Amino acid sequence: MAGYKRYRKEDPVSYALGITLTFELLKYRTRQVTRVFIHSEMKQGETLDKLMALCRDAGIEVVYTNKIFNVLSQKENCYVIGEFRKFKGTLELDHSHVVLVNPSNAGNMGTIMRSALGFGLQQMAIIRPAVDAFDPKVVRASMGAIFSTNFVYFDSFAEYKEQFGARELYPFMLDAQSSLHQIRPQGTFSLIFGNEATGLPSEFAQIGTSVIIPHSDRIDSLNLPIAASIAMYETTKHIIHA
Amino acid sequence: MAGYKRYRKEDPVSYALGITLTFELLKYRTRQVTRVFIHSEMKQGETLDKLMALCRDAGIEVVYTNKIFNVLSQKENCYVIGEFRKFKGTLELDHSHVVLVNPSNAGNMGTIMRSALGFGLQQMAIIRPAVDAFDPKVVRASMGAIFSTNFVYFDSFAEYKEQFGARELYPFMLDAQSSLHQIRPQGTFSLIFGNEATGLPSEFAQIGTSVIIPHSDRIDSLNLPIAASIAMYETTKHIIHA
Repeated sequence: MAGYKRYRKEDPVSYALGITLTFELLKYRTRQVTRVFIHSEMKQGETLDKLMALCRDAGIEVVYTNKIFNVLSQKENCYVIGEFRKFKGTLELDHSHVVLVNPSNAGNMGTIMRSALGFGLQQMAIIRPAVDAFDPKVVRASMGAIFSTNFVYFDSFAEYKEQFGARELYPFMLDAQSSLHQIRPQGTFSLIFGNEATGLPSEFAQIGTSVIIPHSDRIDSLNLPIAASIAMYETTKHIIHA
Repeated sequence: MAGYKRYRKEDPVSYALGITLTFELLKYRTRQVTRVFIHSEMKQGETLDKLMALCRDAGIEVVYTNKIFNVLSQKENCYVIGEFRKFKGTLELDHSHVVLVNPSNAGNMGTIMRSALGFGLQQMAIIRPAVDAFDPKVVRASMGAIFSTNFVYFDSFAEYKEQFGARELYPFMLDAQSSLHQIRPQGTFSLIFGNEATGLPSEFAQIGTSVIIPHSDRIDSLNLPIAASIAMYETTKHIIHA
């Protein structure tokens, strides 16, 4: 009868906090869901009925308890938590990727996943050291996009490049050869972004075509999820039509 | 001898938390700075010397105290706080604007100011009800961009439109006439964005040229600062060169 503990990176499961996120989880990762927790303040009604029906149909255990909410959720208005087994992704050679080199902020990673899914780039390589993609903060910031994202960790960029280097590689850095205005990928590509504070190491200037998003010198840089999203918007424009 | 209190919207002053932000404050809003607070754990050295010299040259009072840090800053590594009088901005008829209708999140507002400054759109109209732009969370998320931003509050969009409606107006909404891919402003313009949760009210579809940022139906929407930043990037491209 172990109590509920804070989420840790080593755990085999993670959590979708809140009902909207739990619905996303049930929709896209049904078979990974282990339990759904319901708080005593959850309102009766259509939404709960729908949730219960989904769990029943999928054979998912529903647990009524308030305890796990005190441990996992600091937010008010969180009355449903979906617990899920961590899942493995795979990257494909003929699919374009987003590559995050040493990302350190969970919220940023989730926000990038959300944009990436919006621009059809839901295959992501993450180069260690890096934040844990299953951290509930990533799940939340992704607004559920993580459940549709294929992500794979690599110990180094070299390891990634060995497997996937035969494509158009675009490292984004301030000291770059090309402007994003000029970049038009012709085939499969990878957009590569560095750490929030330090950006990409200078050796990335030797890899593929380095790119800068032009902006005035009144700011040092754009924030990471914004830079990544602008890059994804621009490079997928010819694929995603209005 | 009043003690230090939490920041409130009604206060005549606000705060730049941290040394980087305080340098930005001193650089761009010197005459608004009322005091600079220094924590006892602030390291001696070049950075502090530079800060002290700037304060001395500008006749700004330096206060050694740890108390205000306990009240204002939850972050570790915050050893300098710049206090400043709130300032008034003005919008110009011949300058393009960003218009935020009912923004509710301080971090988002600051992030938008940072991108806006990067894309030369540092004139911002804010339509009430709205978050307080001088909230230290906005200041921090803006990375100092707020000190170079001219922002003005309006009680309604009608009030803004009365003064500034004779320009290209682009309300961003999911149910829109045009795709961002097709939009090329010819003259002075305003980019209009709605609240984080609800977007723009449907009547904005009748104003100017409504615009959508095309994305897949796998996400409901892009997050607000990301949508705003992509829009600013695209509409200022012909002005900002690599």
